[in-house]
Amino acid sequence: MTDSQALTVDAAVTAAQSAFESARGVAPRTRAAWLDALAAALDANRERLVPLAHDETHLPEGRLNGELTRTAFQLRLLGQDTVTGEHLAAAIDHADPAWGMGPRPDIRRVGEPLGVVGVFGASNFPFAFSVLGGDSAAALAAGCAVVHKAHPAHLELARLTASIAADALRAAGAPDGLFALVEGHDAGTQLVQHPLVKAVGFTGSTAGGQALAALAAARPEPIPFYGELGSTNPVFVTPGAWAARRDAILAGFVGSFTLGMGQFCTKPGFLIVPAGSRDELVQGVTDASPVPPHAMLSPGLRAGFESSRDELAAVDGFEVLTTLPGGDGAPEATVLRASAAALLARPELLEHEMFGPASVVVEYDDPAQLEQLAARIGGQLTAGVHAEDGDTSADIPGLLRTLAAHAGRVLWNGWPTGVTVSYAQQHGGPFPATTAPGTTSVGTAAIARFLHPVAYQDVPDAALPAPLQDANPWNISRRVDGVLTLA
Amino acid sequence: MTDSQALTVDAAVTAAQSAFESARGVAPRTRAAWLDALAAALDANRERLVPLAHDETHLPEGRLNGELTRTAFQLRLLGQDTVTGEHLAAAIDHADPAWGMGPRPDIRRVGEPLGVVGVFGASNFPFAFSVLGGDSAAALAAGCAVVHKAHPAHLELARLTASIAADALRAAGAPDGLFALVEGHDAGTQLVQHPLVKAVGFTGSTAGGQALAALAAARPEPIPFYGELGSTNPVFVTPGAWAARRDAILAGFVGSFTLGMGQFCTKPGFLIVPAGSRDELVQGVTDASPVPPHAMLSPGLRAGFESSRDELAAVDGFEVLTTLPGGDGAPEATVLRASAAALLARPELLEHEMFGPASVVVEYDDPAQLEQLAARIGGQLTAGVHAEDGDTSADIPGLLRTLAAHAGRVLWNGWPTGVTVSYAQQHGGPFPATTAPGTTSVGTAAIARFLHPVAYQDVPDAALPAPLQDANPWNISRRVDGVLTLA
Repeated sequence: MTDSQALTVDAAVTAAQSAFESARGVAPRTRAAWLDALAAALDANRERLVPLAHDETHLPEGRLNGELTRTAFQLRLLGQDTVTGEHLAAAIDHADPAWGMGPRPDIRRVGEPLGVVGVFGASNFPFAFSVLGGDSAAALAAGCAVVHKAHPAHLELARLTASIAADALRAAGAPDGLFALVEGHDAGTQLVQHPLVKAVGFTGSTAGGQALAALAAARPEPIPFYGELGSTNPVFVTPGAWAARRDAILAGFVGSFTLGMGQFCTKPGFLIVPAGSRDELVQGVTDASPVPPHAMLSPGLRAGFESSRDELAAVDGFEVLTTLPGGDGAPEATVLRASAAALLARPELLEHEMFGPASVVVEYDDPAQLEQLAARIGGQLTAGVHAEDGDTSADIPGLLRTLAAHAGRVLWNGWPTGVTVSYAQQHGGPFPATTAPGTTSVGTAAIARFLHPVAYQDVPDAALPAPLQDANPWNISRRVDGVLTLA
Repeated sequence: MTDSQALTVDAAVTAAQSAFESARGVAPRTRAAWLDALAAALDANRERLVPLAHDETHLPEGRLNGELTRTAFQLRLLGQDTVTGEHLAAAIDHADPAWGMGPRPDIRRVGEPLGVVGVFGASNFPFAFSVLGGDSAAALAAGCAVVHKAHPAHLELARLTASIAADALRAAGAPDGLFALVEGHDAGTQLVQHPLVKAVGFTGSTAGGQALAALAAARPEPIPFYGELGSTNPVFVTPGAWAARRDAILAGFVGSFTLGMGQFCTKPGFLIVPAGSRDELVQGVTDASPVPPHAMLSPGLRAGFESSRDELAAVDGFEVLTTLPGGDGAPEATVLRASAAALLARPELLEHEMFGPASVVVEYDDPAQLEQLAARIGGQLTAGVHAEDGDTSADIPGLLRTLAAHAGRVLWNGWPTGVTVSYAQQHGGPFPATTAPGTTSVGTAAIARFLHPVAYQDVPDAALPAPLQDANPWNISRRVDGVLTLA
């Protein structure tokens, strides 16, 4: 840590706190316009942003264009979602002398923004989970200020995006400092430890996330650490589905685990299928079309992937089933094979994440092993089932219940890559998938995690925050004496 | 730890898990009937419960009768509150090929009960925060099973209450094991560490809570630890209010900090007032009527209180202003006095909790010191302001904003003791008041903390949980394609 870095983080956080305070009374509609301005600025600078992102990440421009569209959409959706005020969960209980447990005072609760939020960018989503990604959008929509720690894998892109953001916010009338960028490993540590930082959003590795989570927990005032750390996203295939459409399942599987060179936290890491002919399995995988390969995000990440893959391949009961062509600086995509019995003997391997284009086909002898494996998966972002209509070849209701206890999102006849941004989305899950299983980092429900509830008792109307005043100046939905009243 | 205790906790938790699984599909209305049955059983056994509680806690029977009424009311209110299903935050996004970021699958989210919840009873509320208290009511309303660790200060009462609960649940048709009691220090440790326990609710001391929170965080799968640890509940008085009604404020203050022998987490620990005549202050306190004293909950607790009080009185700049009569086995109520300057020099003393009948009057020379002190209080359950209509003697809006950043509940011209159970209540606050500032342990909003969100993607209607099925069999409020539709 150098003094100049310390100054930079402290200056950014202090300015963010001032901006937060000056903007805290702003109505949702005005704040939504700020998020719209950020989205418009991303769209307007697409020709500068996408090529720079490609240079730094090797991700194809088509994918990056889609990711930028998603990021702008996300900013607009989250801003717009605040206009009804439902995220504030405002509740007004009028004084009631006849309340069943004894006289009730006037008491009113509302979600208030936490303050300055530290957000860490992810290597694998230079737009959607980075500078103006989901955490930033949700925190800004909640009324917080954001200090973003740039990911070193796309630093020039982060600087350009932050500069575009600052200009757009200023032009839209937001206070200076509401969004800022800091750089460097030490800056990340300082950000988590700064007394004015009140929550942290993180998407990245388990090791990095756990280290920062420990810092957040060890502060004199511990703060929420919303870490999305990774997942192996197992997919369970019934005998019925396998018999009906084995080749289609394998094609979907290969397409999903090779997408983006497997550099997704939602990559399917295990495909659990009935045991059968090894040759037919190889043929099915070979006939599938992998997504065209490209270089991985960084040489270090590639080395980590290959070592993680080779480590699993060397485990007793595991083997490399086949590989698919690499080239253009890309590693070969690899399908491993293991038996359900081997995994049940060492269930901790179900959490072995290979961050790159590799996945394991797990063969079971008895459909009851589907449920046995499902009961042993750790916390997951997603888990999937492939089954047929009226399928009785496995206990599907039981399997779904078990998966729902372990995963934030349960998929049916689909693949976990591709996470829509919507009202009902849940991108989270029990530990070790995330450090905050009650929340999501994608979708409109993410806004609420940057609010904390405050109740006001007998406070005069004029001294109440706007969302709780009798006249309802923001025209939001509120629960009044227990009855929800829509905006 | 003895083997027999280990067996007891494991047996209770395992049975609770079975009961949870067999009851998870039960509609809210049925579950509400189980909570109604618990409330009715408490009411029906009032004549057995209250005298036993009095024998064990020394709390007056009048107070205990009120607390029992509150506890039964709370069970009914929380059960009833689930009928609209708003706590489930169910959301349905239909598939949309024209969704702005690209085609959207059908995706549906709902809050699902966490499973078995461990609940720790509090010494100072033998009913409302113990066996069938707020955490148990909220967890049962959420659809969880509860294993309750009895507080040793009222063990016979806990056993009787648990036995009444088991009978009432059985008669109402709930599965055996849905609620169970375990006893002993080691049982508490085992409960927090049991792999099938998915969350813990705790109300008690900072030391005890932090030790258990550390256990919860150190599990292979860390679980949410909802700890309510304590608070000093400062009350800030403007020059205007002090001039207008000093004696009434002192009377309210004395009544609040002596209520229940000061054995409340919401006891006002600091009253911050303009500096003035020492003699007039003594007179005002002496003229006030303390609540009649009675023995404290336990000799150990009394010794801890007296030591904590004497420690603060010995700090440079603090003095004992006056004492009020004790007697009947009760310690004297004590008012300490300090200057705002002394506290600003050692702001950590603002977190010094004396769990008993003592409080500090803090005198300020400059109204600006109100805001300076407010900025330095740690996380609090409550903070209060006393001010007049149109009061310009201090920066009241600034003071309220600062207090709302530090406290779960902000009071105006009132006293923090007395926590109504309602829809808008928030009993929580930033650390060190609680370990989970985003949640509440009192009021209907407490139910949500025992749920975790799960999204289902493209799952056929018949395989979805009831609250997400197209026909809406539970007839609950849901957000459909972004639009909230009330039950």
